Amino acid sequence: MNNANLTMLCDFYELTMSNGYFKNGFYKKNTYFDVFFRSIPDGGGFAIAAGLEQIVDYIRNLHFTQEDIEFLRSKNMFDEGFLEYLRGFRFTGDMYAVPEGTPVFPNEPIITIKAPAIEAQLIETYLLLAINHQSLVATKANRIVRAAQGRTVLEFGSRRAQGADAAVIGARAAFIGGCAGTACTLTDEVYGVPAGGTMAHSWVQMFDTEYEAFKTYCELYPHNTILLVDTYNTLKSGVPNAIRAFKEVLLPQGICDFGIRLDSGDISYLSKMARKMLDEAGLTKCKIVASNSLDEYIIRDLLMQGAKIDTFGVGERLITSRSSPVFGGVYKLAAVENDKGEIIPKIKVSENTAKITNPHFKKLYRYYDRESGKALADEICLWDETVDTSEPHVIFDPDAEWKTKTLTDFTARELQVPVFKNGRCVYALPTLKEIQAYCAQQVESLWDEVKRFENPHTYYVDLSKRLWTVKKQLLEETKNIK
Amino acid sequence: MNNANLTMLCDFYELTMSNGYFKNGFYKKNTYFDVFFRSIPDGGGFAIAAGLEQIVDYIRNLHFTQEDIEFLRSKNMFDEGFLEYLRGFRFTGDMYAVPEGTPVFPNEPIITIKAPAIEAQLIETYLLLAINHQSLVATKANRIVRAAQGRTVLEFGSRRAQGADAAVIGARAAFIGGCAGTACTLTDEVYGVPAGGTMAHSWVQMFDTEYEAFKTYCELYPHNTILLVDTYNTLKSGVPNAIRAFKEVLLPQGICDFGIRLDSGDISYLSKMARKMLDEAGLTKCKIVASNSLDEYIIRDLLMQGAKIDTFGVGERLITSRSSPVFGGVYKLAAVENDKGEIIPKIKVSENTAKITNPHFKKLYRYYDRESGKALADEICLWDETVDTSEPHVIFDPDAEWKTKTLTDFTARELQVPVFKNGRCVYALPTLKEIQAYCAQQVESLWDEVKRFENPHTYYVDLSKRLWTVKKQLLEETKNIK
Repeated sequence: MNNANLTMLCDFYELTMSNGYFKNGFYKKNTYFDVFFRSIPDGGGFAIAAGLEQIVDYIRNLHFTQEDIEFLRSKNMFDEGFLEYLRGFRFTGDMYAVPEGTPVFPNEPIITIKAPAIEAQLIETYLLLAINHQSLVATKANRIVRAAQGRTVLEFGSRRAQGADAAVIGARAAFIGGCAGTACTLTDEVYGVPAGGTMAHSWVQMFDTEYEAFKTYCELYPHNTILLVDTYNTLKSGVPNAIRAFKEVLLPQGICDFGIRLDSGDISYLSKMARKMLDEAGLTKCKIVASNSLDEYIIRDLLMQGAKIDTFGVGERLITSRSSPVFGGVYKLAAVENDKGEIIPKIKVSENTAKITNPHFKKLYRYYDRESGKALADEICLWDETVDTSEPHVIFDPDAEWKTKTLTDFTARELQVPVFKNGRCVYALPTLKEIQAYCAQQVESLWDEVKRFENPHTYYVDLSKRLWTVKKQLLEETKNIK
Repeated sequence: MNNANLTMLCDFYELTMSNGYFKNGFYKKNTYFDVFFRSIPDGGGFAIAAGLEQIVDYIRNLHFTQEDIEFLRSKNMFDEGFLEYLRGFRFTGDMYAVPEGTPVFPNEPIITIKAPAIEAQLIETYLLLAINHQSLVATKANRIVRAAQGRTVLEFGSRRAQGADAAVIGARAAFIGGCAGTACTLTDEVYGVPAGGTMAHSWVQMFDTEYEAFKTYCELYPHNTILLVDTYNTLKSGVPNAIRAFKEVLLPQGICDFGIRLDSGDISYLSKMARKMLDEAGLTKCKIVASNSLDEYIIRDLLMQGAKIDTFGVGERLITSRSSPVFGGVYKLAAVENDKGEIIPKIKVSENTAKITNPHFKKLYRYYDRESGKALADEICLWDETVDTSEPHVIFDPDAEWKTKTLTDFTARELQVPVFKNGRCVYALPTLKEIQAYCAQQVESLWDEVKRFENPHTYYVDLSKRLWTVKKQLLEETKNIK
């Protein structure tokens, strides 16, 4: 899975443009591109960046096979010199990126590429795909995990995922966002995300009676028993049969950490009734797992109504981020080096002012309150700026310059870290567990106001005075472009 | 891509249940499972079945590697005999399926599996994933293509797809639904879906002037020129510069089948103004491509307003089926063979009556009006029933038995075809072009009323008298299950 060659997974125009860059010599020029997004899924207050590990694998594996070259030649559009160039193609540039699990905000560079034009252009499609997919699922998972208020959330969506990668890598992203495990066996084998599961209705139907199905399962997996109780009638047969099986098979062995799973009907009502029946039978440690069309909104409502649920199994609404299934990351040219090696900033204008890009080679700071440790604001600066935290620092809203804020007693952290230098990976990839822990800790550093599901406070992402000046100049110049 | 071993891409419970079937001897019993879905994405009148080719590849490749077995052993949950069994595991059963590109309706079996319990159980997750993903995208693509009323629709969504498969195989599904091509190079290389593309804003920004960028592109690709005209100002600079480049570079060569692409702003207004400017310049054959957040609803509105668009490039809203991103296919046990080889029907009851399954080994008929060729109704029958089309045939609504319809002068077609027999593939996979043509022809056989985007007529999917009797009996019996 990690070693598939995805070099040809690019929009065809990356290749036609690259052929053009080759022919006019642009391919020797260094270019600067940013990956950023414009709006947060579900109208949330922040997103979780994810997908970097797959991008590192992709870039390390970048190469065109003889078959790929032949395929391209058959199009009769590409210069022979270009096809020859592709034969030896590899990534020789630099990449800076925000670590996976970092809360990120609109318009700030999640990844910055500095590379010769063709190299920077050809990787666009996959970079966006990887960031868009995994950030989408990690962001959604984090919302759902926060809604569960400390209860366990498991990813159960493989069968509804949009393809094999969506299932396997989606479960990886869900783990980053805070899920405790997955149903997907392959994600466990490849990424070490703990896979678990209960039983399907077919198990229960395969036996002559529900009780026999339950008893057999308890005998098979005494330490991993979760019985699905809704095949016939949850409260009239499912829960009573489960209680009987637990008492006859597991209690005599001293085991009491088993559970039941509710998968249909009104989960709030059924969980309260089931809890009562279990408690009356003395099975107070028996866990209740719920798994029917859940997401952050339904989980929040269930808990508000006092539903007695210990673990949520979340399927299609997590793995596809159903309520908001697109993460709109884009890849935009920010600068080009001229023949003297000077960085010439570039801007993309739009009638929609929100779509105007931030030009130039940049760096990204996050400022934290020294006392509370809470994140105060992000500032996008030019690449050669540094921030002196020993002095008060004034930031301003680029959409309303008169709105300023003076930071005092703060710490500053550069969010992007070097990942590739001259084509060599210089980043020690963290383990998935480290990423999950880092994500939880970073989300903790956000104010509650930013974490609201609806109408959250808009976190400040400001531009440095110098960057803002460059941007305004370029906007003026654009008016005269013909 | 086709040969990846996805055997471990299964929910973990398929393995724990299979281990149980192994230990209690169930694994020698033949079981019957159906893949079906309960509701149509976007509230549409029908869905397009897709994903079968990937399922055939998957089943042919099914096997557990030594590494897989070791991984499972490390879980300390599986019987050594079972792990030994997995070492030689392959699919030995039968599979019947509706061909890709067929319009399908809720509750009818798209795929039916007859196989020993473990084999039938282990393939559940991938079968659902493949059918759910590709049917979702093929269905959405078909809606968008119908909205475009004969204009070309291209799939442009790789960068927003939910993972690599979602991009590559999603573009395959979009082609089945009627898209003429894709931006994804790999889909062309692997599946032969024509890949094409224009240019990104970065191409335009890379040059000192927009005109120079356009002129260079015309010189490079005189026979494939589509110029992106919205980098600076669509009507003030983009279109005039494109006209100048076309006139200076292409017209002198006698080429006039070039185009421009609009990617922002009000597409309706801009397309009309651009058309006027192009026509006034004598470039009446210049095509206009539009590509900004399109789907079937926006395309319908644009055309209602007289927008002058020849080709639609559709991205995120197609590749993720954004307005309805889940296809809810399920996999349910329908019957089990007893020790005498008799087929014992099984049912899954639910408090939600719509979720009660259709029991037994079944077959699926579609009836067509002999004169008009239009599809009249589908009927789900028991596996050993046949329909005599020389006699009038009475069908009835299973939800309202008094509602009957008598078919006369009709033809009957069995929708499922044999795909595997005793583990051997017996199905000659059609080419992708054949599937696309078959899909278009089958959609043509549906009444317009079924094709409405909103509130379509509900197509009849009825149960045969015999199947209905079996179902009622089982429902009665279930009441007594303990």
